[in-house]
Formats: sequence, C-alpha cells, structure tokens
Amino acid sequence: MTETTRWLTETEQHAWRSFVRLQDKLVGRLGREVQAESGLSVPDYGVLVHLTEVPEGRLRILELARAMEWEKSRMSHHIGRMAKRGLVVREECIDDGRGAFVVVTPAGREAIATAAPHHVEAVRRLFIDPLSPAELAVFAQISNRILEQLEKDRP
Amino acid sequence: MTETTRWLTETEQHAWRSFVRLQDKLVGRLGREVQAESGLSVPDYGVLVHLTEVPEGRLRILELARAMEWEKSRMSHHIGRMAKRGLVVREECIDDGRGAFVVVTPAGREAIATAAPHHVEAVRRLFIDPLSPAELAVFAQISNRILEQLEKDRP
Repeated sequence: MTETTRWLTETEQHAWRSFVRLQDKLVGRLGREVQAESGLSVPDYGVLVHLTEVPEGRLRILELARAMEWEKSRMSHHIGRMAKRGLVVREECIDDGRGAFVVVTPAGREAIATAAPHHVEAVRRLFIDPLSPAELAVFAQISNRILEQLEKDRP
Repeated sequence: MTETTRWLTETEQHAWRSFVRLQDKLVGRLGREVQAESGLSVPDYGVLVHLTEVPEGRLRILELARAMEWEKSRMSHHIGRMAKRGLVVREECIDDGRGAFVVVTPAGREAIATAAPHHVEAVRRLFIDPLSPAELAVFAQISNRILEQLEKDRP
C-alpha cells in the first residue's frame, strides 16, 4: 500500500491536525467542565440529548448506537452503567427481534435539565464567542459537506 | 443559573451540532477503519503519534495526558493496556517526583508504520477530498482560533 499512498501535503496535514487538536481539546475541556458541574460525562450527555428529543424519550439501543456512531456493544455497556445510576431504563423487546429499547427516566430528564445551562455556557464561551457569525456559518457549511461525504461513503 | 443562561440561537445551535456530529461521525468512522486494517484504536494511534514525534520516543505519562487532554489516570490505564500488547513500555522514575515515562517499543513503531498509510488514505477520502483548498484553509484557521481561546481560557 505504501507505494500508492497519497501522503498529505503540509497544508493538508496542518488542517487535519488542527481538527484533531480542536476536537480533542474542545471535547476534553467541555467534558471536564460539564462533568464537574453536573456529574454527566460527554457520552451520558449525548445519550440523554438523543433520548429527550424523541417522543416518549425512547429509542432502540441499536438506533442510539447508530446515531452516535458507536459499536452496539459499547452502547449496551454504557446504557447498563447509566441504568445503574437511574438515568435510563432498559426495556427488553423479545417479540420483534430488533433489540431492546432504552428509555430516559425522570431522574435522567432532571440530570440533563441541570447540566444543560452549564453545557450551553461552556459551548458559547469556548466555541461560539471566539468566532464571527460569518465564520460560524462557514464552519457549519464545511462540517456538513464532510458529513454528506461520510453518508455517501457509508460502507 | 437558568435565568442568566445565554441559550444558543438557531444558527449557533446548528453550527455546534454540525461540529458535534462531524467529530462523532468522522472520528468514529476513521477509528473503525483504522482498527479493522491495523488493530490500533484512535487513542492507540494518538499515543503512538505523540511518542514517535519526540526524541527517543519517550514522554512522561503526565505530558502525554496533557497533550491529549486526558485525565492522568485514564492515560495511565490506557498505557498499561498498550504495554501488555507490547506497543510501549513504562519506565518508572522515582527520583524526581514528576512521574513515570512511557517509551515506544520497536513493535509500537512497526504498528504505527503499518497503520499510517491506511490512516492517511481514510483522512484524505473522508476529510480532505470533500473540501476545496480554500475551505481547508478556512477550516484550519477557524480551528486554530478556537484553540487559542481554549489556551487563554485554561482554568
């Protein structure tokens, strides 16, 4: 493979490294701040956002895994840990073969309601405020372009 | 806190969600591809990149944790698992109180050399190719702006 590898140019490498550092550092910092204020980790927060946005706060574990681009087994383990903390419950569904559901509990709704203002303040301070409205628009546009490519390229 | 929360506008929320989806999906996809081809996870790859870029392939665990924005305990556990697979060795350093070193092994260097072409091809296909050179430059510039803010805002 090495002979045909299209190695990155310096500019391309710079752009990629910037993105990697951005996502490491921004997600890391945000995660620590939200965890310190609310006790929810970034994945906890992501799961609760997905669940509280759908009717009845209820999704198949498989759908949730797909939405967050996680392996199903990782999501199952994570849901197990969140269930122990009372944030969600797992509902088995043996009749249709499409796997178990996960449902947000009142405690889970309360946890995300408590965490949300801290999360929003952190997002604003660290991501929104440093950029102009024009830059924010370009950033969203570029992100969506890559996301479209990811969809097309789905294995 | 809720009364003073500066909630995101629709445009701001759109930009933020695009970034979150981008990083979830791109890192998720890339991770699965690289793992399937080379057996290295995204964190394994990150650790090996950092180690192979410094003299003697050797860093303090604490420095590595800081560079990747991880908690030190998480990095220690991860290094323990990589050491069991022979990719790195841990060198205790009791005399200066600044903690243990981690050093890449020849097997670790071989693993990243094998993974790198797959990683680069995936980065090119999923991140570089969908964007024009101008967009790539803007993306890097915006990422760096946010990174500067993160540095200034360091707790």
